[in-house]
Amino acid sequence: MTEIERLVQLLSKLPGLGPRSGRRAALQLLKRRETLLLPLAAALAAAAQRVHPCSTCGNLDESDPCAICRDPKRDPQMLCVVEDVADLWAIERTGAFAGRYHVLGGTLSALDGIGPEDLDVPGLLRRAPRGGEVIIALNATVEGQTTAHYLIDRLAPSGAAVTRLAHGVPVGGELDYLDEGTLAAALKARRPL
Amino acid sequence: MTEIERLVQLLSKLPGLGPRSGRRAALQLLKRRETLLLPLAAALAAAAQRVHPCSTCGNLDESDPCAICRDPKRDPQMLCVVEDVADLWAIERTGAFAGRYHVLGGTLSALDGIGPEDLDVPGLLRRAPRGGEVIIALNATVEGQTTAHYLIDRLAPSGAAVTRLAHGVPVGGELDYLDEGTLAAALKARRPL
Repeated sequence: MTEIERLVQLLSKLPGLGPRSGRRAALQLLKRRETLLLPLAAALAAAAQRVHPCSTCGNLDESDPCAICRDPKRDPQMLCVVEDVADLWAIERTGAFAGRYHVLGGTLSALDGIGPEDLDVPGLLRRAPRGGEVIIALNATVEGQTTAHYLIDRLAPSGAAVTRLAHGVPVGGELDYLDEGTLAAALKARRPL
Repeated sequence: MTEIERLVQLLSKLPGLGPRSGRRAALQLLKRRETLLLPLAAALAAAAQRVHPCSTCGNLDESDPCAICRDPKRDPQMLCVVEDVADLWAIERTGAFAGRYHVLGGTLSALDGIGPEDLDVPGLLRRAPRGGEVIIALNATVEGQTTAHYLIDRLAPSGAAVTRLAHGVPVGGELDYLDEGTLAAALKARRPL
């Protein structure tokens, strides 16, 4: 295999890229050697060396505990449970949450053979803040909701209030394009103006 | 900027990826450190070091002249002109061409300020095989066709026959979905059965 073929093969494995876009990406990299190829090679090597999972919450960061776990301004009485680091990043981008996180590392799935022992449930139970709040921010999919119900049961003795994200109309969303389930949930959870 | 942000920023510049898919790719890389991140870092470094443009035809390869230019089984009397290395790869994948290539490096575009001096036209004129054939395999876009006409004029004194790719119905294509221009071209160039 040539160096180019090897590069295309690896790039094709990235999410969102396939064989065709992998070839386009490889070509773009080879054309933009100084501004893209070499910086990306360096960034990958640096990330491999410096970025690791936080042993407390599962976030990825250059320090352990991660910047969020170390931040004294973060409320330790608020713990937000997410499936994946991507979801943690998504919530951080909102700037609307000032507590801490717990990354489960997946959701229960009989189909994929993922049981409670494959997720960081012990860590969550250990960290659930007595007298505080655990916000379950899992995807609104069958697996996410199954996992949420499982966690609610397990968290019952912890002494923490357990909440979940609200369902409703996405901001900027049009009712006409919304599925019936979401619309029904939004109607049920209507708020006084 | 953290290492992760830097990685996301660079990945987002790859064709086919944006900020969101760049983040997903970064996360995937960090999760698959041994099987994806480190191999990709190594492949990029190797490609940066070993892959260079062929000084004869403009192809990208680990040797100069490239493997195609060096291959004695390749007919030097057939020269296929392409805009970009991606097009060369596409034609190579067909396995239907056993001549050599010439990568122009772009197409004429008044809008983007790309004139003949920005393309490897001198190299093409020098390499045009007297008594042989130059196949113009440029995109069937306005820029591609403008460039084709320009090249036909410049190649006239070379003593090479100049041809272009056929227009017609894509193999497996449905007439109903085809634009009128292509269908008209296919009708005009109909072949006896």
